Amino acid sequence: MKLEIKKEILLEGLNKVSKAISTKNLIPILSGIKFDLDNKGLTLTASDNDITIQSFIPNNENMNIEKEGSIIIQGKYILDIVRKLPDEYINIEVIDELKIIIYTDNSEFNLNGINKNEYPNISLEESKKIIYINNKDFRNIINQTSFATSSDESRPVLTGINFKVVGDILECNATDSYRLAKKTIKLDKILDENYNFVIPSKNLMELNKILDSGEDNIEMHIFNNKILFKYNNLLFQSRLINGNYPNTSNLWPTDAILTITADLDELYNVIDRASILTSDKEKNIVTFEINNNTLLVKSSSAEIGRVEEKMKIEKDRDEEIKISFSAKYMMEALKSFEDKSARLSFFGEIKPIIIKGNEDETLEQLVLPIRTY
Amino acid sequence: MKLEIKKEILLEGLNKVSKAISTKNLIPILSGIKFDLDNKGLTLTASDNDITIQSFIPNNENMNIEKEGSIIIQGKYILDIVRKLPDEYINIEVIDELKIIIYTDNSEFNLNGINKNEYPNISLEESKKIIYINNKDFRNIINQTSFATSSDESRPVLTGINFKVVGDILECNATDSYRLAKKTIKLDKILDENYNFVIPSKNLMELNKILDSGEDNIEMHIFNNKILFKYNNLLFQSRLINGNYPNTSNLWPTDAILTITADLDELYNVIDRASILTSDKEKNIVTFEINNNTLLVKSSSAEIGRVEEKMKIEKDRDEEIKISFSAKYMMEALKSFEDKSARLSFFGEIKPIIIKGNEDETLEQLVLPIRTY
Repeated sequence: MKLEIKKEILLEGLNKVSKAISTKNLIPILSGIKFDLDNKGLTLTASDNDITIQSFIPNNENMNIEKEGSIIIQGKYILDIVRKLPDEYINIEVIDELKIIIYTDNSEFNLNGINKNEYPNISLEESKKIIYINNKDFRNIINQTSFATSSDESRPVLTGINFKVVGDILECNATDSYRLAKKTIKLDKILDENYNFVIPSKNLMELNKILDSGEDNIEMHIFNNKILFKYNNLLFQSRLINGNYPNTSNLWPTDAILTITADLDELYNVIDRASILTSDKEKNIVTFEINNNTLLVKSSSAEIGRVEEKMKIEKDRDEEIKISFSAKYMMEALKSFEDKSARLSFFGEIKPIIIKGNEDETLEQLVLPIRTY
Repeated sequence: MKLEIKKEILLEGLNKVSKAISTKNLIPILSGIKFDLDNKGLTLTASDNDITIQSFIPNNENMNIEKEGSIIIQGKYILDIVRKLPDEYINIEVIDELKIIIYTDNSEFNLNGINKNEYPNISLEESKKIIYINNKDFRNIINQTSFATSSDESRPVLTGINFKVVGDILECNATDSYRLAKKTIKLDKILDENYNFVIPSKNLMELNKILDSGEDNIEMHIFNNKILFKYNNLLFQSRLINGNYPNTSNLWPTDAILTITADLDELYNVIDRASILTSDKEKNIVTFEINNNTLLVKSSSAEIGRVEEKMKIEKDRDEEIKISFSAKYMMEALKSFEDKSARLSFFGEIKPIIIKGNEDETLEQLVLPIRTY
């Protein structure tokens, strides 16, 4: 293998695939990045057995291929070397099969490589079952729901985001059983088949980090136990989580007894301040008291003291309510909206609170109340 | 106690004194900030027994004093509250002696305070032995020497910076016995008395964080076992480290066999790259080989591979040398200079390397070589 390649292009590819390199990896070969060079271009692959990332750099004016070939290079070192070299172009050459030379005018690195045959055989084949989704919509799903997934491995399905397709409607749910986030996307076309699968939330967050802000479509290739995302020259494969995702549709109460409209930023800040004195506790409980057109947000802690915040809101009817909940969960729910104001619907003191943006109809958040008596 | 005060002014004072609040503090009262309000203004005090910080906010148009008094407020909460309140002015009132109310138009915090008499009696009196030093010079001492102090508590004096005054010359030394940093400052006037004391490096770094970028003089009030810094409305007191600081003056070799001049940034980056493959090891050893007008920087690691970097330098004579040292120590030394280029003097393969800036004569760094055979 021998090539000259533009530093920035190589670094971009290495940065993407390196997200699959775990420092805790027990299989030494998986701390390496696989380089495959042929006349079409350079393919970089990394995997931690949970996710596999492949980035393809096409052969164009950024690259000069002198000899095709494959090699595995330690991920940590190649990334540091390429990042720190000041040159515009970098040469990579393999001699004696396993000796890698990375060089520019004034720098020369000699690394011990690993034979490509030692790399596990990871299939990144495509599926005939494909969902096409706009990149921006896809990133919104992750940003607006992943925080609500559980980190408790005792119920694995709740650590993932549930994707459900019926016709041309994709519904995504995330819940840790104390709150629930639902994002609904209309797909470009009606699919022949219905889908229902769960993707590990942390894998989706890794994918989110390497997606650009473009609006091209992402292809989701669906298999029984894995999913392959294809986006421009990037492949990202994740396992799926086995098990039945709970049916969340019956958790949404109807017939609100009161709906308020409030400025989102102000509401967030009011709750943030009300929770200062409870911040040491896992569940920092605050209480809403709604009378007239004023929202009182209260909290107290016997040792430390108490807070009372008030803000103006709009009510849809002349009802009063007092309800307590986790400030952390409510703030994370409020933060997921891009709207200027939000509507909060109440169904009773021990019933869930539902939050919607004032304009965006695709996102709904649910937060369970906490009994304080 | 009752006052109205501009939020930003109070926050600035709280931020400064809060540097003395340790989260690991074993004495509960020291997690509080003492408020003392009289007709001259508001004095804030915090201490962790190792350092004590006091910030005075003078009574002017930023403050409306309705009733004098004193109280101790939990540092963590008061800081969070003041930081998060959106209002321009904040009211603080003590009722029933120990109940604190912090309020604005829409927010009200009720906190449990602690009686001022429970606060330890910490003297912040001034001394007759005073060193005056320009703030910028003082911050340079800390920035350019503190990294060379030891973190090993088995030889306490080496965890501090040694301040030595003879006449109008202040010499500051820091060493962990592998490298040595020396900064020399000419004071405004000749002092009657000579001084030699050691200030804990980590305390000086805390002080550095709360000093502004002004050029006013700092007063150093010297006592036997403590030192008080006075800067505008700020008092900062630190213990001194007992014990004799080693005499470092005889560590500087004379009669260099070779001095090279090199661009500082380029030299730093070349060493940085040469050390990539050794970064896992505590002492990442690199080797300089100087022939002709070229500097070769090499390192190698049996398992990983080897690096060779080269750069152009200027030599003062036609000598060659090969010398190895810790890349980390050399890079920290190089980073301490503000000059564009540096002079490195060599005295032999097993003698120290001395680094000086090409313009600034007040700073000298020494790095010991490492035998590699």
